[in-house]
Formats: sequence, structure tokens, C-alpha cells
Amino acid sequence: MLVVMKAQATEEQISAVCKKIEELGYRAHSMPGAQRTAIGITGNRGEVEPGTLDEMPGVQELIRVSKPYKLVSRDVKAENTVISFAGTDATFGGPGLAVIAGPCAIESRDQTMAVAEQVFRAGAQFFRGGAYKPRTSPYSFQGLGEQGLQIMAEVRDKFGMKIVTEAIDNESMDLVEKYADVIQIGARNMQNFSLLKRAGRARKPVLLKRGMSATLEEFLMAAEYVMSEGNYKVILCERGVRTFADHTRNTLDLSIVPAVQRLSHLPIVVDPSHGTGKRNKVTPLSRAAIAVGADGLIVEVHHEPDRAMSDGNQSLYPEQFDELMKQVRQIAPVVGRMVPAIGNHPRAEALSAQSSVRSAISPLA
Amino acid sequence: MLVVMKAQATEEQISAVCKKIEELGYRAHSMPGAQRTAIGITGNRGEVEPGTLDEMPGVQELIRVSKPYKLVSRDVKAENTVISFAGTDATFGGPGLAVIAGPCAIESRDQTMAVAEQVFRAGAQFFRGGAYKPRTSPYSFQGLGEQGLQIMAEVRDKFGMKIVTEAIDNESMDLVEKYADVIQIGARNMQNFSLLKRAGRARKPVLLKRGMSATLEEFLMAAEYVMSEGNYKVILCERGVRTFADHTRNTLDLSIVPAVQRLSHLPIVVDPSHGTGKRNKVTPLSRAAIAVGADGLIVEVHHEPDRAMSDGNQSLYPEQFDELMKQVRQIAPVVGRMVPAIGNHPRAEALSAQSSVRSAISPLA
Amino acid sequence: MLVVMKAQATEEQISAVCKKIEELGYRAHSMPGAQRTAIGITGNRGEVEPGTLDEMPGVQELIRVSKPYKLVSRDVKAENTVISFAGTDATFGGPGLAVIAGPCAIESRDQTMAVAEQVFRAGAQFFRGGAYKPRTSPYSFQGLGEQGLQIMAEVRDKFGMKIVTEAIDNESMDLVEKYADVIQIGARNMQNFSLLKRAGRARKPVLLKRGMSATLEEFLMAAEYVMSEGNYKVILCERGVRTFADHTRNTLDLSIVPAVQRLSHLPIVVDPSHGTGKRNKVTPLSRAAIAVGADGLIVEVHHEPDRAMSDGNQSLYPEQFDELMKQVRQIAPVVGRMVPAIGNHPRAEALSAQSSVRSAISPLA
Amino acid sequence: MLVVMKAQATEEQISAVCKKIEELGYRAHSMPGAQRTAIGITGNRGEVEPGTLDEMPGVQELIRVSKPYKLVSRDVKAENTVISFAGTDATFGGPGLAVIAGPCAIESRDQTMAVAEQVFRAGAQFFRGGAYKPRTSPYSFQGLGEQGLQIMAEVRDKFGMKIVTEAIDNESMDLVEKYADVIQIGARNMQNFSLLKRAGRARKPVLLKRGMSATLEEFLMAAEYVMSEGNYKVILCERGVRTFADHTRNTLDLSIVPAVQRLSHLPIVVDPSHGTGKRNKVTPLSRAAIAVGADGLIVEVHHEPDRAMSDGNQSLYPEQFDELMKQVRQIAPVVGRMVPAIGNHPRAEALSAQSSVRSAISPLA
Repeated sequence: MLVVMKAQATEEQISAVCKKIEELGYRAHSMPGAQRTAIGITGNRGEVEPGTLDEMPGVQELIRVSKPYKLVSRDVKAENTVISFAGTDATFGGPGLAVIAGPCAIESRDQTMAVAEQVFRAGAQFFRGGAYKPRTSPYSFQGLGEQGLQIMAEVRDKFGMKIVTEAIDNESMDLVEKYADVIQIGARNMQNFSLLKRAGRARKPVLLKRGMSATLEEFLMAAEYVMSEGNYKVILCERGVRTFADHTRNTLDLSIVPAVQRLSHLPIVVDPSHGTGKRNKVTPLSRAAIAVGADGLIVEVHHEPDRAMSDGNQSLYPEQFDELMKQVRQIAPVVGRMVPAIGNHPRAEALSAQSSVRSAISPLA
Repeated sequence: MLVVMKAQATEEQISAVCKKIEELGYRAHSMPGAQRTAIGITGNRGEVEPGTLDEMPGVQELIRVSKPYKLVSRDVKAENTVISFAGTDATFGGPGLAVIAGPCAIESRDQTMAVAEQVFRAGAQFFRGGAYKPRTSPYSFQGLGEQGLQIMAEVRDKFGMKIVTEAIDNESMDLVEKYADVIQIGARNMQNFSLLKRAGRARKPVLLKRGMSATLEEFLMAAEYVMSEGNYKVILCERGVRTFADHTRNTLDLSIVPAVQRLSHLPIVVDPSHGTGKRNKVTPLSRAAIAVGADGLIVEVHHEPDRAMSDGNQSLYPEQFDELMKQVRQIAPVVGRMVPAIGNHPRAEALSAQSSVRSAISPLA
Repeated sequence: MLVVMKAQATEEQISAVCKKIEELGYRAHSMPGAQRTAIGITGNRGEVEPGTLDEMPGVQELIRVSKPYKLVSRDVKAENTVISFAGTDATFGGPGLAVIAGPCAIESRDQTMAVAEQVFRAGAQFFRGGAYKPRTSPYSFQGLGEQGLQIMAEVRDKFGMKIVTEAIDNESMDLVEKYADVIQIGARNMQNFSLLKRAGRARKPVLLKRGMSATLEEFLMAAEYVMSEGNYKVILCERGVRTFADHTRNTLDLSIVPAVQRLSHLPIVVDPSHGTGKRNKVTPLSRAAIAVGADGLIVEVHHEPDRAMSDGNQSLYPEQFDELMKQVRQIAPVVGRMVPAIGNHPRAEALSAQSSVRSAISPLA
Repeated sequence: MLVVMKAQATEEQISAVCKKIEELGYRAHSMPGAQRTAIGITGNRGEVEPGTLDEMPGVQELIRVSKPYKLVSRDVKAENTVISFAGTDATFGGPGLAVIAGPCAIESRDQTMAVAEQVFRAGAQFFRGGAYKPRTSPYSFQGLGEQGLQIMAEVRDKFGMKIVTEAIDNESMDLVEKYADVIQIGARNMQNFSLLKRAGRARKPVLLKRGMSATLEEFLMAAEYVMSEGNYKVILCERGVRTFADHTRNTLDLSIVPAVQRLSHLPIVVDPSHGTGKRNKVTPLSRAAIAVGADGLIVEVHHEPDRAMSDGNQSLYPEQFDELMKQVRQIAPVVGRMVPAIGNHPRAEALSAQSSVRSAISPLA
């Protein structure tokens, strides 16, 4: 904390502020300047509670200095966190890019299998799909619940893709933790601290989406909540923020990728589907996300967007996702990354034998 | 939904869009204009899922028309909802203004009783205080939990003020519902749909705070979630939104008060403490909130802000709250409102006999 | 400027930063803290140019401390600036509230006179109207130019109201300075520094509207531009800022009124017409503006909004403006203000003799 | 315009609205729906002025449909606008990417020549530098004026790079038009309509920066102003918008690139220097800008950022700009673009003979 005094503050006022700081148990450092005096506060372990310092005579303003995050910070851990999974060489934060794809919502077994096969063939290593859907309207489709989770488990068995799906409360968290490989916390729950703590006690990695109006600091503090309970496997996800701009559903803030990477060791992926809300902007922004240095993508794909029960107008057609992957594979090497092979699941080989999978996954073919 | 065609769209393209609309089960209304054709869609009960209409040849843009809220709307209930409580004539939405005051957090029995007596004497009919605190940092004070609720129950017994306190998850909701008179849902949980549904099954009124970046529609839809489960006693609360402006903690959006009142029958109160985050701006914005037509205020007061465990720099001193009430009482009649007497709780009479309470509650004395 | 070092910064890195600061001609104040060291920079007359300090090893972040405004600041002039006019006791910043009213654009002599008479009777001391209109579309009505200014001069002659009108470039400024009593600089030109400097050389007071996304600091710096050229008569005007909220045209930020009053001696008025963009919200927000402590209002009124050539849907009917004035007169005394009498222009007396003007201007009649 | 009626609107109210629309000279199209009736308005050549329609009984809301831009639109010109220059094959909007680089401000002849040589060697085809600087503070360096323009003309003579520089008012426009190859209109002047009209009468291409809080529609309408005066050579430039996010100076909105390309035939470039305000984020966001499909970049480079008179902390070192160009050259082919050779200016050959220029410009070397 830094206390900035008014230009005309008297010596007595400056002394009074220093005295008050010392009474609160901190140390005061007075810095007389050309125009005014500033007083630094040190000796605090956490944040200084400003209390009534700003009401003291002669005080112009308080400026907060210390950042409250610890475990997420490179101060504590300098090297990148890499999150890996048994049975695949796909990682978050490693040299390979992580690609998560699938429908917005799990609607039926047939729909899910159809989309899963197509995103698998295109090279996705992770499969996404909502079993519990946070919808703006209580009258909209709310998801299949556990049945949806079971369908996703089938996808994993058949294709070897790891499963990413959202938990929306402590009840659904128990089931999601049981079925999924990565637990997603949605943007609307980024500051649902009760849910974050519960996620911190889960034994699966957590993909944490940035809240619609979360600052970088709030975003990192939400991750800190998860980590403070002992779960260090947190993947951050930029998915667009709310601004005045109305040509996209949200404004995708790609600058947060290098900003996170400077401050934190955690991996960060980008969601261009929610980030733009428009099918025709998903591929351009996916290219941009990889170019800016993100550790991966999470993309909505649906084989029949017209019949999707949610987010139909931001879901890619499977052939559009193929093209997206092709372009991403070309950009990855420029930033020293690669899109890894699908992995060693036996079914992958079976499938690839009879299809074009091999060519799709070869680098820059 | 309205489909706006491009200026150069052909007759065939227009026909194809109309055909597609009919196939989806709706009716299409073609409106040829001077520059371009627009096609209205009707026949839908809920929202039209746009699917891939925006990708059809000749389509410029889709514009959503129907609003998805029902129960919150004056379309369904034209007259104002008035929420009243046994044992007091204080209401939300009636001719009297509702004033909720108290500390940010319940810190101890002594602190709570000290603040409670002071806000009671100034004329507050409702007492606020957090037993479960959603804090940005996991290392900050998180509240006393049930012990805090018990202390607030004592406040009710002693002063007759009704209790308003926040539930942050389904677990705390069970206890809050048991102890409190009004269940608060915080801004960070405005789209925690699981919690909203649980609140909809509670038998106590719900005070729902606007999310930091919630549009009017999202705010009303959050109330719709509560109401769709059968709890029609919802009080809306404006508490500032997040913008680029940095001279206050949030930007208090008072224009939402008349906007809500035009569309919805639900009462709406204003929180100038979180809305500004600065002690010296709470009283001016409280006056403005009453002048704009709000149904009440929720204000943070602490007898020792320097020692407050949270939000010390936005809490009023008790004497500042006295002054606030005095000013609010003068503005209320201009908008046809009044600040009602404290109520008929026996302790109120006992206290008032020995104090200045009577004069404090007389109108425009 | 404050340089915050990383937690693991070495002694050598800290010394290197201090050395660099001294080389740049400033003084460095090292403050070792529990977690990290911060280094204060003093000795600067203006802003410190950060250059490459933030790239030095061990540096976490730079925090700007000094505010660059001088002449607008209470540091330089503690007492309020009061702007008065010959031939009237209406002021900006004095005990009386200033009310500016009139149509968005001067469309014709008849329209102008009709509106002028009605706002004069209701108690406005200043008449507004655009002769040069900054319109979003080049195909919209752009104003009558000098002819519009001449019509406004007639209004002043007939009713004694002072004239407020906008200049949009150096050319129109010459004419506006010649005809008007107050030169308005619009929101879109708040950082048109060339125009601000020209206004600073004018010999008429300047009403400066806040830009759509201007911070408090930028707003004050725009006023500083005018003052730095020698014109100290600046009236600030809040007119709504751009946010994600879509229920009003802009989001009226009333909290900037007390924020300005804390830092600056300049008067500030509020424009609820542009601030909301909706006729039905102008009166509630006008009440709120007076209640929050503004020095006055600027309101759009049109006798035939249906035929207005711009902003018809935010212009009040004359009878609505009468009602607004009645309510404002009741709230003013609560904040220690009054709405002064119309002034001593001979025509005022003539008019009032034959009409209801007298009763309209008596306080709280 | 679409008029949405309330659910309970009567037949009489619907008829009255239709009648009013016809009276205003338009055609009304009533569309009865399951819940409510909507009424389309056609027959308008420009925008419908809503007047008092929204105040009529039974009316819920007005929704604007027509977009007011014409000349900027692909409705009028389907193919991309390509802007070329005599004596170089560099273009805006063609297959080659346009790279503009140089210092924020022209500070001296030596500084300018030093930076110019370095950006030329790295492959920039356009040289930027401010002779007239719009600064937030009146006490900051305001530019060298015509002397600065003369120095830039020397740069063109020596290196063959085309000159891009800002005009801030009609006076500076006369000189900028005389010396420069591209006239820049800054973000703060995007709605300085007087300046836009003047630029529309200039005979040089105009680089128009997006305002800090400009919507896509306002951005295009600003270009429409220039074009409506007869100058069709407009280059749009995204430079970041103002949001709540505080980890960058502005939030770079790359999604506007495909959004512009969908609606307009005009080229669009990206400014990652102002878009982020931080040196360490310029290169990642430059890669992203090319990947998203922008037609070029405008980047600040300074050989001694520590001594820069403005924006030192967002200016790249020359060697960083070399690296940026290398990365951009690798990404360009993925989006079907290339970075063209430096051009046929005789000095280019002279220089390249003695230096590493050749290798720097070869694709993917």
C-alpha cells in the first residue's frame, strides 16, 4: 500500500499518517517529493486493510501495491506447470498444443458419437460436452446429467480422447469428478468460491474459465482458491469478456495469454467459440490464439448445428473443424509448438487403418 | 427473431430462408423494404434457436426480438409486488422505503450488537451482516458461519429488525433459510443457477444482487430462475457494474431502477456501499438512489471501520448513517415515499423511551 | 512512479534499478518489505516516462503515482469556482442550481421560439440548442450553422436566457464565441486537443462534456488543456459513458460528481438526456443528479418530439419539463441548493405578468 | 425499425401504431405472434427517426434494423478495395501485407534516420512518426510540426518508404496532405466529423483508427464520412478499445478484423503497440493479428526507448522488430498472404548490397 498525500499536506498530517500506520502494526516509509509526499507501507504479510487511512487529513489517495496471489505465481514456481494424463502424450503446458473439441451439450448417444468420431479424426485429443448446462433461461435445455457423463465415458473408451466437462455445483461435482478427466468450471462460476474450494479437493485437473468481467488478478485469485485446497493442476481458459462491442457475443482478449504467462506458471487455453459466439469467426480467432502463444484450444463442433439444443450458431461443422486443425498445425511451429499425434489408444490405430486419420495428424503435411 | 437480408439478396435466397423457417416449425413474414427485405419469424413459444440461418446465402444478420422472461414481467402481473413481514410494517415495494443496514461481516457478538443498536436507532428496519463471505482471496476472513447466523438471530430478538444475510452455496442456504428473514444472493452468484433454483425452493424472500456485468435481461432472467421454482418473493438489488471507470470500485447504474420498474413488478433496492466502494460517496449516492425511485437501500455501517475485517473503507460510521437517514427522509416525499416507523416490536418501545429514537423516525422533523 | 520488484529479485537487481533511476535524473527510495522490495521515485516535476524500467531484471511492475493535472486541482485552488454572467444572477458553482434546457438542434425560428418560451416559463436560466451537430451519419441533418446562432441570439434578446451551444471545430468556434454565452465542447471532441486549446483562448466559459470512455483523470486533463491556455471558466458535464449495459443509450455515472468535487474546484452539471437516451428516464435521473450534488442540469426539450430532426426520443415534452423542474425544486434544499429566480431581464417581468411564471419559480410553493 | 408490442396490447393499440407509422410516411407490416405482435416498418430511405413511437400505449420496445452505412458496405462494392502507391508494389488490401513502422514521435533528424534505417532493413514498406501529437497532458511534448514532416520526407527520399503521419486538425491536415503518403486520423478524432470531412476532400489515402469505445457501426460510419466527401481510399485500423481489463493499456479486439471484412470492402490493419501498451506484448499480438487475417500492422519502434519523448514503454527495440518481422513472414502464408519485397527504390538496392536486407526479406528463410 502506498499513501499519496495532498500537495499542501502539512508535516503534522504526514506524521499522523505515519503514526497510524505504525499503530496498525506496519512500517511507514516517508518519501518527500517535488510536489507531494508519498508514504510506503511495508511489513504486511498479506494485503493491508485500508480502513480509514483515506479519510485522514492531508491524504489524497491510497494505491494498492502487493498482489495477493501466491501459489499461482512464478514467484513461487518459476518453471511452467505441465499437466499430463495416463495413456496419452497429450498435455497442457507442454510442447504440444492441447485441442479440446465437441458439442456444446450432450444431447443423445447418437449425436455424441457422431461428433466424437469426427473431432477425433481431425486430431482432437480431448472431448468436450456439457452434461450440466448453465443456461440463462430456466426454460432452456439443462443437460442430461449423469446419463450425459456416461455417454462421454463411452467416447473415451471408444476413441481414447480424454473427457472435459463442466460441474455447476457440489452435487454435480461428485459425478463429474467420477467420470471426467478434466473438470470444467464455467465463466459464471469463476467466483463461486464454494465450488472452487470443492474443485481444490478433487483429484482431477481443473479447467477454469475466466469470468465475463474478471480482471487478470481476479482470474489468478480464482485459480489460487483451487490451489489453496491442494489441487495444483489448474488450466486457465480465456473465453471472451463483456464489453460495449456488439459485433461478437463477447470480446476475446488474447492479450491475457502473454500476461498470464509472465505472472503465472499455469497453462492457458483459449475458447474462440464462446469468445466470438459466431461460427464464421471461430477459425480466424483460433489461428490468432495459437499465434499469440496459447497452450491449446477448446472448440464447439456439431454435426447438425441447426438441430443443436444450445449454441448452434457458434458450433463449427465437422469439415470446418478439419480445416481449422489444418491451419493450426501450420501456425504451431512458428511459436515453437506442435500438434501431437492422437496417442496410443488401440482404437485409434483401428480407426486410422481404415481412414484418413494418419494424414490428418502429420505435421504440415 | 428477425432475419435481415442483404441489399443484393435474390428472390431465390429470400424464398429459401422463408422455406427453412417454415421447416423449423415457425411462420415466416417477408417484408420487402426500400433497400432490403427483412423476414419476421413468429409462431415460437420460447426463443428461436438461430441454428444456421445466419449462414444462408443472402442473409446479412439475425436480430433477436422476443424477451425470454415471463414470471418477472408486467405482462404476467401488472401491479407491483409488495413483500411484507409478520410483526413489522416494513415492506419491499410498498409506499414505505426499506432500509437495510449493518456491517459487511459478522465478526463478533460485541461488534454486531454495537452496530445493530446504532442502525436501529437511526431507523433501519432490516439488519444485514455476512456469516458466509465470498472473498476474492482464499486467505481473507471467510465469515463465522452458523455462529454468525445465531448472533444475527439475537439482533432480531433484541431489536425487532428483520435479518438479511447471504447464502453462498446449497449447504449455507439450508442454515440461512433457517435463521434469516431475507436470503441474499450475491453478485458473484447471480448466474449460479443451481443456487438460484435452490433459493426458488426456499420459503423466505430472496434479495438478488445484479452481477458485475449483467445486462438488464440477464438480471431479470436470474430472478425468473428463482420464481420458476415457486418462490415469487424476489427483491432485486443494483450494486454497481464493472466498467473502465476507476474513480469508484464499481459504476453504480441508477438508470436500471426505472428500467426494471417499467418491465417488471418486482421491487428493486440499491447498494451504494459496494456500488461506490468509497465511504465518502455512499451518502450522495444514497440520496440519488431514493431520488431516482428505488424501493430501498442496503448500506454497510461499522462502528470501528479501521478494525473491520472486510470492506472497512466503504463502511459508514454510525453518525454518518444517522445523517444519511436524515437526508433520505427529506427526499422520500418528493417521490411519494416515506420512511416508516420502526415497527411494533416491544424492545423498540423500551429503547425509544430512553433515547432519541422517536425524533429520528419522525418525518422531516 | 513506484517500481515493484519480484519476490526473488536479488540485491544486485535492486541496486541496478536504483542506479538507473538516478541516471534518469530522479531520486530512488528503496523500501524492503516482508515479501518484496518496492522502490519509490521522486524528484520529478511532471510525469516520469517509464522508458525501459519495466524490462529490467527483477522488476515485476511499475505503478504510476503522480497525477498530471495542476490548474483544475484543489491543490492549486481550494475554494469552488463560481461562474457568473452579466445581467442575471444565475451561476455555475454557486448556491443556485443552473438549469440549461432546449431542443437538441435549432431547426427553425418558429420551433426555437416555441421551445424557448416554454422552458423559460418553467424556470430555465440557460437555453441550449445545436447549430453545428456532430452526427454519427454524414447523411443526417448537420445543423443550420450561423443562422441557428442568430436565432439563439434572438432567444436571448427576448427571454434573457443565456445561450449554450456547441462548437465542433476551429471555424465554428469563431462564430460560437461571437454569439454564445457558453461554448459547449461535445463528448466526441473531449480529446480534440486542438479544439480544447482554441477554447482556452476564447473569452467565454466552456462547458466540457465527458468523453464516452473518459476516465476521471482524462476528463480533468481535458479541462486542464483549456485552462492551460488561460481560460479558467470551465464547467464539466457528465453525460453518460459507454458500457455493456443496453437498457439505456449510455450509462450515467453519477458517482463522478462527488469524485470531481473532491479533486477539483470546477463546477459539474449532468445531462440526463444523453445520459439515458430515453424520454421516460430523464426525469428520474434528473432528480438523482440534483440529489447527488450536481451544480445543474442540461436537458433536451422539444414541443413536437415526433418531428424533431434529431434525438426526438430523448426530448421531453414541455409539460414533462415543467414537472421535472417542480421535482428538482423540492430536492434542491435537501442538498443546500436552490433554483434561483429567472433573473432581471425586462421581458421576464412582462411575460410573468401575464402568465404562471411567478408561481413556477417560487421555491417549494 | 421494428416495433415490438406488449403481450397484452389490444387490437386498437396495434392499429394505432400502424396508423401512426403510415402517417410518418412509412409502411407498417403487422406480424401477430404466439405471444405478442411485432410491426415492421419499411419504406424508409435512411434511418427511421423513432420520435414518440415508443411512448404509444401497448408498445414494449423499438428495435433498429437498417444499418446506415452505404459506401463502406459490400452491398455497394463486393470486391476488396486495394490501395496502391506509385513507385512501390506495397499495397493495403492486396495479397501482400502492409507493414508500417517507426517511432511514436519524430523527435529529431538523427533519431528519425536511425530508426528509419533499421525498420527499412527489417522490411517495413511504410514509415510512421508523429509530427503532431495528441497528448493527454498539455504539458507533454506536442511534436515538431512541419519540421517533423520535412524530416519524414527525407526518410522517403532516402529509403523509399512511404510516409504515414497524423493530422489533428484542419490546419495540420493541409501540411500533412502536402508531405505524407497516408494521412492518419487518430482514435481520439474518430468522431471529429469536421476533420473526417476535411480528410474526405484530401487526395491521399486515410488511415482511420478505431475510437476507444467505437462500435463496429460507428467505426464504419466514420469511414463513411470520409468516403461521402469523395475520398474512397480509407484504411481502417484496430488499436484496442477501452474495457475494465487493466493488464494492458487497451484491449485489442482482433475479432473486428473478420467482422469488418464481412461487411466492408475496406482494408484493415492492426496496431499492437497502442493495442497493448506494453513492449513485451507487441510481438505476440502482431503474430495474432496476421493470423486472424489483418491486411497489415502498424508498430512503434525506437532505437533508444529509454529516451523516447512519448510511449517509450511500448516501443520495440530494432532487434525485436527484426524478430517480429521474421515471425510474421512465417505466419503470412498460412492465411494466403506474403510480405512483399522492399520495392524498387534505387536506394533500397544500394543499401541491400552492403547489408543483410536480402536475407531479411526472403520468405520463410
